[in-house]
Amino acid sequence: MNLWKISLDKYNSYDNRKYETLFTLANGYRGIRGALEFSSKGNKGNYIAGIFDKSQSQVTEIVNLQDPLGFNIYIEDEKVDIDECVLDSFKRELDMYKGILYTSFIAITKKGKSIEVKCERFVSRNKINRWAAKYEITPLNFNGKVFLENYIDGSVTNSAWDVMNKTKHFKVKNNYDSNPGIALTVETNDNNIKALELTTLMGENEIGNIFKNRRYSEFGELVSEVYETFMTEGKSSTIVKYGISISDRDLKSDLYASGTRQLKDFMKDGYDVEIKKHIIIWEKIWNEIDINIDGDEKAQIGIRFNLFQLASSAYEGDTTISIAAKGLHGEGYKGHVFWDTEVFMLPFFIYTRPDVAKALLMYRYNTLKGARKNAETTGYKGARFAWEAADEGLEVTPKWGVDYDGNAVRIWTGDEEYHINSDIAFGIVEYYRATNDKEFIVNQGVEILLDTAKFWQSRVEYNKVEDRYEISSVIGPDEFHEHVDNNVFTNYLAKWNIEKALFFKNWLKIEDNVKYKVLCSKLGLNEEDFNVWEMIYKKMYIPKSEDGMIIEQFEGYFDLADIEISKYDENEMPIWPDFKGNKLGETQLLKQADVAQLMIMLPEEFSEDVKKFNYEYYEQRTMHKSSLSPSMYSILGLAVGDRQNAYKYFMKAIYTDLEDNQGNTDFGLHAAAAGGSWQSAIFGFVGLRVNKEGILNINPWLPEQWEGLSFNINWKNSRVSISISKDKIEVNSTGDLSLNIYDKKYLISNKKHLVVER
Amino acid sequence: MNLWKISLDKYNSYDNRKYETLFTLANGYRGIRGALEFSSKGNKGNYIAGIFDKSQSQVTEIVNLQDPLGFNIYIEDEKVDIDECVLDSFKRELDMYKGILYTSFIAITKKGKSIEVKCERFVSRNKINRWAAKYEITPLNFNGKVFLENYIDGSVTNSAWDVMNKTKHFKVKNNYDSNPGIALTVETNDNNIKALELTTLMGENEIGNIFKNRRYSEFGELVSEVYETFMTEGKSSTIVKYGISISDRDLKSDLYASGTRQLKDFMKDGYDVEIKKHIIIWEKIWNEIDINIDGDEKAQIGIRFNLFQLASSAYEGDTTISIAAKGLHGEGYKGHVFWDTEVFMLPFFIYTRPDVAKALLMYRYNTLKGARKNAETTGYKGARFAWEAADEGLEVTPKWGVDYDGNAVRIWTGDEEYHINSDIAFGIVEYYRATNDKEFIVNQGVEILLDTAKFWQSRVEYNKVEDRYEISSVIGPDEFHEHVDNNVFTNYLAKWNIEKALFFKNWLKIEDNVKYKVLCSKLGLNEEDFNVWEMIYKKMYIPKSEDGMIIEQFEGYFDLADIEISKYDENEMPIWPDFKGNKLGETQLLKQADVAQLMIMLPEEFSEDVKKFNYEYYEQRTMHKSSLSPSMYSILGLAVGDRQNAYKYFMKAIYTDLEDNQGNTDFGLHAAAAGGSWQSAIFGFVGLRVNKEGILNINPWLPEQWEGLSFNINWKNSRVSISISKDKIEVNSTGDLSLNIYDKKYLISNKKHLVVER
Repeated sequence: MNLWKISLDKYNSYDNRKYETLFTLANGYRGIRGALEFSSKGNKGNYIAGIFDKSQSQVTEIVNLQDPLGFNIYIEDEKVDIDECVLDSFKRELDMYKGILYTSFIAITKKGKSIEVKCERFVSRNKINRWAAKYEITPLNFNGKVFLENYIDGSVTNSAWDVMNKTKHFKVKNNYDSNPGIALTVETNDNNIKALELTTLMGENEIGNIFKNRRYSEFGELVSEVYETFMTEGKSSTIVKYGISISDRDLKSDLYASGTRQLKDFMKDGYDVEIKKHIIIWEKIWNEIDINIDGDEKAQIGIRFNLFQLASSAYEGDTTISIAAKGLHGEGYKGHVFWDTEVFMLPFFIYTRPDVAKALLMYRYNTLKGARKNAETTGYKGARFAWEAADEGLEVTPKWGVDYDGNAVRIWTGDEEYHINSDIAFGIVEYYRATNDKEFIVNQGVEILLDTAKFWQSRVEYNKVEDRYEISSVIGPDEFHEHVDNNVFTNYLAKWNIEKALFFKNWLKIEDNVKYKVLCSKLGLNEEDFNVWEMIYKKMYIPKSEDGMIIEQFEGYFDLADIEISKYDENEMPIWPDFKGNKLGETQLLKQADVAQLMIMLPEEFSEDVKKFNYEYYEQRTMHKSSLSPSMYSILGLAVGDRQNAYKYFMKAIYTDLEDNQGNTDFGLHAAAAGGSWQSAIFGFVGLRVNKEGILNINPWLPEQWEGLSFNINWKNSRVSISISKDKIEVNSTGDLSLNIYDKKYLISNKKHLVVER
Repeated sequence: MNLWKISLDKYNSYDNRKYETLFTLANGYRGIRGALEFSSKGNKGNYIAGIFDKSQSQVTEIVNLQDPLGFNIYIEDEKVDIDECVLDSFKRELDMYKGILYTSFIAITKKGKSIEVKCERFVSRNKINRWAAKYEITPLNFNGKVFLENYIDGSVTNSAWDVMNKTKHFKVKNNYDSNPGIALTVETNDNNIKALELTTLMGENEIGNIFKNRRYSEFGELVSEVYETFMTEGKSSTIVKYGISISDRDLKSDLYASGTRQLKDFMKDGYDVEIKKHIIIWEKIWNEIDINIDGDEKAQIGIRFNLFQLASSAYEGDTTISIAAKGLHGEGYKGHVFWDTEVFMLPFFIYTRPDVAKALLMYRYNTLKGARKNAETTGYKGARFAWEAADEGLEVTPKWGVDYDGNAVRIWTGDEEYHINSDIAFGIVEYYRATNDKEFIVNQGVEILLDTAKFWQSRVEYNKVEDRYEISSVIGPDEFHEHVDNNVFTNYLAKWNIEKALFFKNWLKIEDNVKYKVLCSKLGLNEEDFNVWEMIYKKMYIPKSEDGMIIEQFEGYFDLADIEISKYDENEMPIWPDFKGNKLGETQLLKQADVAQLMIMLPEEFSEDVKKFNYEYYEQRTMHKSSLSPSMYSILGLAVGDRQNAYKYFMKAIYTDLEDNQGNTDFGLHAAAAGGSWQSAIFGFVGLRVNKEGILNINPWLPEQWEGLSFNINWKNSRVSISISKDKIEVNSTGDLSLNIYDKKYLISNKKHLVVER
């Protein structure tokens, strides 16, 4: 079993959409869903990060651009359509180590022609605008004319599967017979963003060019070139398709001139050189991100899938884009950015690819204008980050959606899920703590911390009777409960956000006083505000059980119908219990970790006993209807000693998409679950956390079948390699490192090797 | 067995293209292939007669316009795609008597929803721009939201099945949310002809409107409206789709304004009223065209199919269009007009619908400018009608095609198949003989006869040695032999053309001397020319066998390898014999009737013995690789007493498309075979012919199983009804009629009834 490969051995067109998501190739700049060229079924997707458009859709969404994958094989007059053929063999394989998607099959057409096709496709990590495919085609029982069609399809829409919401976000502007190749430019409806796809075919064998005739055609929104060739039984022909994808979102010169130049450069470099460079970069990335699990092949492949897709979704070169909830892998959640990025994915990047982490946080800084606008339009001050953000940071959460029964329901998250503000503040502090990136904290980080604190200052309500600050009518992470008062996750993190704002403003005052003054002036803050902040921090209301051991998720939660989960499905996931006449929101059932989530994010703030009580209480009531939930419970479970469920939740998290256990992989990657998977391994099984003194701690526990677990992290500019086996822990560091292992303190000096017996 | 219906009981998407041809609905103005709305497979076709465009195709061709049939049913988020469903029942039925296409099926979707759909569709013969469909939809095992999508698809191309020739002939100009309904306008590339499709849905049940929400969308080249409704298990909902199709080829006002007005008028009239009027017109047409065959259900249905499709292909209201070789039923032969019209189809119209016959001949008159241009550009004089004609009468035969093995071959028919000129002359004389339409012969007919004769004058070559006129390097009806000299069919009909020109010029001189003089002046003719014509008529070379009994198809034909046909396939059609090392053109094998064709067209010019010898000689050598051939051999066979083969050939002719016996029904109707079918019945079994004195003769012979044969014809403004049974022949006439039956002369006076024992 190759532990780097995701394979599909049996073709069923009904699964095409799922595998398009799983086999997406992306480089952070763009993503191409893993569509099969030889089937018209599924939901092709080609996205460039940051290209959004609203048109007549409810809210702005990532644009599904013109499809450049178009490739047809015609055996004389018969098109090789895999859905019309008998398949003698079929295999698709994503080589995650190399970032290459392989497809091969033997198809027998209705007319009895048997043909073998082997393809590989990659989206370059070397040059982000390049992608390519290679086809090896062999007639197995005939000699004859074969036509190869290369086309770019501009008839693409978003939400193609949904007749009432299907939306076309662009107009096809130009078709080009571009010699070599073909090109098609589109322009988005609202902001006139142009995107160009340019592709061409090269066919060669031992005696050179194999193409006889070429025909260029324009069919409205589709541009095509067809090459005639002659193929001989048993002899393979190799065709390379070169692709260039560019947009004037990031490139300000003439698109077509630039595209043709880039295509020629690509062809001059050649397919083999480009793919080699691409593989070298992936090797380098794997060296940073891989988690090696010995003794558990399923876990090994599963965790790698999540690491691969996370790494594919991000691009350090653009600070105006972030990672959508569904990555660059589909149109679910409309390409919007949620707390998923900072709370679930960011830790992975902070510890493995800090330059990416910084770019993601820079996206928040660069959309502060939108966040301030959000605060203003909703009657508050400072910066209110959008629950769902797109290109400008404005709130773009849809106001309406459908419930489990398909009925229209008002969506309140954009109005009430305020905790996104603290989540971003959390990401900044986490990033700075691990990287010591002063330049960022001084120039961007503190500004965000102060402006989000300023928002909270305007948002909290002072309760005179109780002499406390409250936040009413919110939604916490658990979205089953809307319009609740004093959700602890929200209140606690608001308080924490203010605490950090106060800390860093004091720090900045000393570190860079001019900067400090400029910032206060820019944000309209002075000592009076800071005094209020202190008060809020001290008097924020945190509801708890009478004995103080169980945090009450929100005020009044304990008074709700206490329906416990007692049955589990074949995947060990909760089955909806009987509500006993209550509506869902009238019960204590949770969609996902909420109090538990808080305890994972701020582990040093809660005693082990408190964690244990809360874990046990809420775990019994959590339905895991969000893919964000299982990984979190695995972490908290391990922290409090529930090792049995931890592995189950870990496997659930890493197989979210591979086993489609939320039933919606069709619509894109569960990127937060991928981030949660990394956290579950590192924060959970390894038990990595930073204590109040800023010292790294590990406290590993491995499931019985795991022979070993090893990985690398970045910690304050050192690269730390940790390898855990049954009997020992080995640590290497490129810099001096202070590390607690099982609560015992170790000092590792530069490039020294530490071995600790387990 | 309903003898008016063509049925399909089993669905197989592979046959969709064939049934699209068979189920085409046309009214002469336009044709819509019988595509199934619920399948994406096949080759949709929507043609308006006379809209041609070349663009990048080899020659100008009839334009496959935007598709107005678009209709989708979505059960919640699941589209009813018949190719993805399990079918519990399926039936399509063309009711030829009413001109209505019925489709019904019960489909079970992948998600297990069972739905019954019953549709009817008609293209109005009442108002040519109207068409409509009615859907009755019943959920069989669910209640729920159903979305109904009405759309017009402008992403249509010609030759969609052929990757190297696929061509888009128009640009989508405008999409309209037209309240009611949607509209899409296209404009052809070359001549900027605009065509508009306008459609809307109405859904009503006992309590009125059933639609809840409507969504209008534009997707590039596609415009759509979706209606949301709620359907209940076991309850049927009826949705009517109204359509208007117009073009500025024939309508000079603002298309969209006119279209919306017409749609409103149509909806005011209502579906039920329009379909009733449509049926009444079809009843009237059937009263003119039907051939009733008692005792042979297969023959009865088969002949009616041909009559239905012929009548559907013609429109008396437009004198600038003719009937294409493939009708309005497909893109085969690119919508071009051949000799098929005058020689094969015209007799049907002359004798049943003479106003249509006149319109078809007027098309030739109205394209004389093109015919004169053809003569000029090829170095001749007068009018040279195009072997393949489109909108302007210019020669549009492709110069290149593919042979049986798929190799590119030069097509010479446009250069050498001169006989089209005499074929048109033949049509004019036949028309006049049967109708006495003096107005036509004076104003248009003679002009064509003279100008085609003038062409022949410039085309013939005088052989001094033999003192005879010859025509070298031609192709006759048998296209296996190219560049032949003195093809008798060509020479004989050229001579005949000249003879008729001389006759009618003399006639016109007396009838209308001013017209005569004007015509001579216009065409540049005088007595010197007429003297030359006389000489050509007298001295035209007609090669024959030494005993004079067998006409030699062309000079040297008897010297070719004499390969006879000895084996027949399961359909009793010839199997290619061994060529014994010769190329096809080096053998005496024929593609189709050639000498035999001549003898059918001019039966009075050849003795029965000569016909018999020639029939026997050529029948043995004819491969029937043209659908034009079997019907002709049935006629000649009956004339010479070969009754066995006659029935076989008749059935072959009438089932050309129904049994797809040429293997290319996918591409459209074999309209000439349809005309040949009528001729085979009337000229063959009835033995109807006009003798030299202009007297109508019948000489019926019926196959054993036929209990009777009855039909109507028009003869010199009388309507003649003839009914033949086993023992007698009954004749009715609305006017005085002289008629020979079995060579015995009868006079039938006005409205009298004649019965003759057999």
